[in-house]
Amino acid sequence: MEEKPARLTGARFLIQAEEAEAMAKEAGVAAVTELLPLLVPAAQRLARPPISNYRVGAVGLGTSGRIFLGANLEFPGLPLNHSVHAEQFLVANAAAHGETGIRCFAVSTVPCGHCRQFLQEIRGSAEIQILVTSDEEPAFRPLASLLPLPFGPPDLLHKGVPLLLEPHDNALGATVVPGGGGGRGLFDAIGEGRMEQRLRAAAEAAARASHAPYSGCAAGFAVADVDERVYAGSYLESAAYNPSLGPMQAAMVAWVAAGGGGGGEDGGWGIVAATLVEEEAAVVSHVGTARIFLEAMAPGAHLEAYRLRSSKAD
Amino acid sequence: MEEKPARLTGARFLIQAEEAEAMAKEAGVAAVTELLPLLVPAAQRLARPPISNYRVGAVGLGTSGRIFLGANLEFPGLPLNHSVHAEQFLVANAAAHGETGIRCFAVSTVPCGHCRQFLQEIRGSAEIQILVTSDEEPAFRPLASLLPLPFGPPDLLHKGVPLLLEPHDNALGATVVPGGGGGRGLFDAIGEGRMEQRLRAAAEAAARASHAPYSGCAAGFAVADVDERVYAGSYLESAAYNPSLGPMQAAMVAWVAAGGGGGGEDGGWGIVAATLVEEEAAVVSHVGTARIFLEAMAPGAHLEAYRLRSSKAD
Ligand SMILES: [Zn+2]
Ligand SMILES: [Zn+2]
Repeated sequence: MEEKPARLTGARFLIQAEEAEAMAKEAGVAAVTELLPLLVPAAQRLARPPISNYRVGAVGLGTSGRIFLGANLEFPGLPLNHSVHAEQFLVANAAAHGETGIRCFAVSTVPCGHCRQFLQEIRGSAEIQILVTSDEEPAFRPLASLLPLPFGPPDLLHKGVPLLLEPHDNALGATVVPGGGGGRGLFDAIGEGRMEQRLRAAAEAAARASHAPYSGCAAGFAVADVDERVYAGSYLESAAYNPSLGPMQAAMVAWVAAGGGGGGEDGGWGIVAATLVEEEAAVVSHVGTARIFLEAMAPGAHLEAYRLRSSKAD
Repeated sequence: MEEKPARLTGARFLIQAEEAEAMAKEAGVAAVTELLPLLVPAAQRLARPPISNYRVGAVGLGTSGRIFLGANLEFPGLPLNHSVHAEQFLVANAAAHGETGIRCFAVSTVPCGHCRQFLQEIRGSAEIQILVTSDEEPAFRPLASLLPLPFGPPDLLHKGVPLLLEPHDNALGATVVPGGGGGRGLFDAIGEGRMEQRLRAAAEAAARASHAPYSGCAAGFAVADVDERVYAGSYLESAAYNPSLGPMQAAMVAWVAAGGGGGGEDGGWGIVAATLVEEEAAVVSHVGTARIFLEAMAPGAHLEAYRLRSSKAD
C-alpha cells in the first residue's frame, strides 16, 4: 500500500474540483451545486458541539470549483462567544486554502443573524446562494434575502480594501516585544527551539494573511499537537465587530479540518504548545484570551506570545 | 435644594412614561413613538467607542411606556466580541429595569445581523418596529423584515420557558466553592468586608435574574466604583450563542446607564473592585474572561469570584 490519498488521512473538509465533479456524477446529480446538500449530513457528523449537542453542517462551493465543509465547534468552560458556527468554519476553511470566493452553500439549519453578518465580509456576499436542508422544500436563495438592508464592509471601508477571501499580506513589525507565556523548557526538550520556530513562523504567516481592516490589528495563532504537527489560523474580522472570528478559533478550524491528532469528542484536543503573533500596542489584543482559551482547552500547553513592533514606529 | 431628580443625577438612559408623554408634547409630536428618533442624537453622544469612533445610539419604547436609551461601548485591549452594541445596551438597560417588552425603537444605523439575532430573545420580536434615522425616508418596519426566516428561541426552547424580558428567578446553589481572585486586603480596608458583601449580593441578584436557558449557566457580575457605588449586570444569552451578552458587559451597561463615577472618554472606568457569581461546574464560565476584562479595563481592581454549588448536587 502506498500513502493514502489526502482525503482519507484527514483532509475531509476539502474536496478538489475534479473529485467534486466525479462525486456529483457518482451521486447521479446534474451539477456540483446539487451535490452540496447531499454532503451536509457528513459535515454534521464532523461537528464538535459538547455544550449544545446541536450539530450543524455546511458545505460550500468555491469559485475554484473546490468544495469546503464546515461544522460547528463549542468550547466548554468558556463564554459562548468562543463558539465557531458551521458557516464560519466553512469560510475560515476556504480562506486558509486561498479560495477567493464562495458561490453557494448548503447548511443543515437556517443561518443565524451572526453568520448572515459574518458572511458580509465576502465580496459579492449578497449573491451567495444558500440552501437549508431542513426546509420543507429546500431551494437556493441569495444571502440578500436573509439579511436585507445589510450593515457591512461598504459602510466602513474604501472600495480598494481587500475583503475576507481576497489576498492579504499585512505588513508586520520585525522587532519582537516580550509578550506573554511561560518558560521554554518544553521547546528546548523538543529540540533546541525547533518547534518554537515552527510555531512562530506559522503564527506569523497567519497574522500576515489575517483580515483585520477595521481595527488594523493583524493576528495569527498556531498550535502544535502531540504528534508535533502544527496548525495555524488567521484572525478574521467583521464590520460589526462581535461576529469576528478570533485567531484561536481559526487555528482550531485548521486543526479540525486537517484531522488534528489526539483530540476527540470528549473535549480533549491534544494541544501541547501554542503561539500567538500580534502587533504591539494593538487596540485589539488576543493575549489574555489565548491564555484562558488554552487553560480551558489544553491545561498543560505552553503558550508563547510575540508582539511585533514596526521599526518605523521606533 | 433637595435631592436632584433621578434624571439629573445620572439616569439619563431611562425616561419615565409621564415624562416621555410630556417631552412628546413639548417637542410637538403626536405620539411618543415619534419622539424616539428625536432622542437618537442624544443617545449617540453617550456612546463610548474608543476603537471605532463610530457612535451608535438607540432609543426604545417599552410596553410600560418608559423610554430606554442605548449606546455602543468598546473596550480597548480586548477582542472585539467584548463590544456592546447600542441595541444590546437598550435591551440590557430595559431588562435591568424590569421592562417586559420593547414595542419599537429608533437607531442611528441599520442594526447589524448580530443585533437582529440578539433581539430574537424577546417574545414577539418579529413585531418590534425599527426606524433607522440615517435612512433617506425613515419609517418604522418590523424586525421580521430585517431578519426573515429567523433562527431563535422557538428552535430550541419549550414554549413555557421565560424569554429575555420576562421575569427570571434562577435557582442558585447556596454552598460557595472557592472561585478565583486574590486577597481581601482592599475589602478589609473599606470596612470589614461590607463592600465585599454588597458586591456579592448584587452579583448574586443579577445571576438570579440572568437569561441563560441554553446553557443553564446563570451568572451575574457587579462592580464598585471609586465612590463605593455598586453596579450589577445579568448574563443574557442568545439562542445563537455568540451574540450572548456577558455579565461583565451587562454590568458596564448598568454602570454607564447610571452615570458611574470616575470614568471618562479616555477609557478609565474608575472600577476598584468586582465580583462574579456563577454556578460551579458551569459548562459556560466567565471567570477567566472576568479576569482579563478587569486587567484591561481596571488594572488595579480586585476580583472576587464565587462559584455556587447546589446542595441537591452534593
Ligand atoms: Zn450562525
Ligand atoms: Zn449591532
